[in-house]
Amino acid sequence: MMLADTTLAERRRIEDGDLRQLFLDARTHNGWLDKPVPDAVLAEIYEIAKFGPTSMNTQPIRLTFLRTAAAKARLRPYLGPANVDKTMAAPVTAIVAHDLAFHEHLPKLFPHNPNAKGVFEGKPALIETTAIRNGSLQGAYFIIAARALGLDCGPMSGFDNAGVDAEFFAGTQVKSNFLCNLGCGDHAKVFARSPRLDFASVCTLL
Amino acid sequence: MMLADTTLAERRRIEDGDLRQLFLDARTHNGWLDKPVPDAVLAEIYEIAKFGPTSMNTQPIRLTFLRTAAAKARLRPYLGPANVDKTMAAPVTAIVAHDLAFHEHLPKLFPHNPNAKGVFEGKPALIETTAIRNGSLQGAYFIIAARALGLDCGPMSGFDNAGVDAEFFAGTQVKSNFLCNLGCGDHAKVFARSPRLDFASVCTLL
Repeated sequence: MMLADTTLAERRRIEDGDLRQLFLDARTHNGWLDKPVPDAVLAEIYEIAKFGPTSMNTQPIRLTFLRTAAAKARLRPYLGPANVDKTMAAPVTAIVAHDLAFHEHLPKLFPHNPNAKGVFEGKPALIETTAIRNGSLQGAYFIIAARALGLDCGPMSGFDNAGVDAEFFAGTQVKSNFLCNLGCGDHAKVFARSPRLDFASVCTLL
Repeated sequence: MMLADTTLAERRRIEDGDLRQLFLDARTHNGWLDKPVPDAVLAEIYEIAKFGPTSMNTQPIRLTFLRTAAAKARLRPYLGPANVDKTMAAPVTAIVAHDLAFHEHLPKLFPHNPNAKGVFEGKPALIETTAIRNGSLQGAYFIIAARALGLDCGPMSGFDNAGVDAEFFAGTQVKSNFLCNLGCGDHAKVFARSPRLDFASVCTLL
């Protein structure tokens, strides 16, 4: 009864302060305070982000959290020059990747279709598109979940993907997508906000 | 001073009820109540989601909101059989797409690099990867922003992308990515939740 009586206007809207934290005032960070990110917080980000939807529940994202100097040193040679210093300074750098063998898990993940795995087998183009689409959706859930827990993010695409894959994912079908620094950002080092496209440039009402 | 004194433990975490609304309890909807979604709400979703980060501020997403029976009828022939009834019943169906000509806007969108457009020109593979990665990130921001405003979402990948592109985006470089029904979901028609991969299967700590 309650559902049938619910009108759009009565639906719960999250508060403005939360919208600011997640989207409106959140910024990509380039400088980092010397505050560690506990492993328990990394786990909690995942435990929130994992509930975001993916097509056929494919969940192709794979996350590698670089927390130590030794792990960061393995990444360093593959970073674009502008990304080196900030990445070395970040408490944690996540390699956001996706597994092109994601469909091996579908008998468990998508039980209502016993042939879900067969939809992808032998179709590398479909596998790749599905992996990058859904791995990127999950990458965005990850960013928003981190912000929801009060962390700042510094996502980056400027790196040698093939080099990172050889260094971190040799012998697997895991492919890097983007990097994301995590921690408490130094607000003094945030760039001026770049413009966003307006509604009329992006959206069409039919 | 305040920033330097901020510890991770003191950082603002959004409330559990909001985490439930955005992620933990939010579900993909298959049935829809007969409640319209005002155009102003569609605009507000975009005005929130547009602030999510994209690489080089590329913002490739393009959104087409199908609100009328005539617009839905144009989509219908390209839907997978399981997606027809729920999509016809949804108050709004968004075609989440990306523009492979996104780099034409970079002189305005990424002013700190006067050559940003040139990074992509004549590189179709880089353009395509950048468009689907960032268009999908923005698609996820869109889903979370809609949930933040109290809407329910029903994202879907089961449709004929080429057919939709010919019907809606002929003569442009815009390519469909996924579809997302929007409205007030009928909670009685939600499927049982499918399992999520656990932290150890997805995440590596280095």
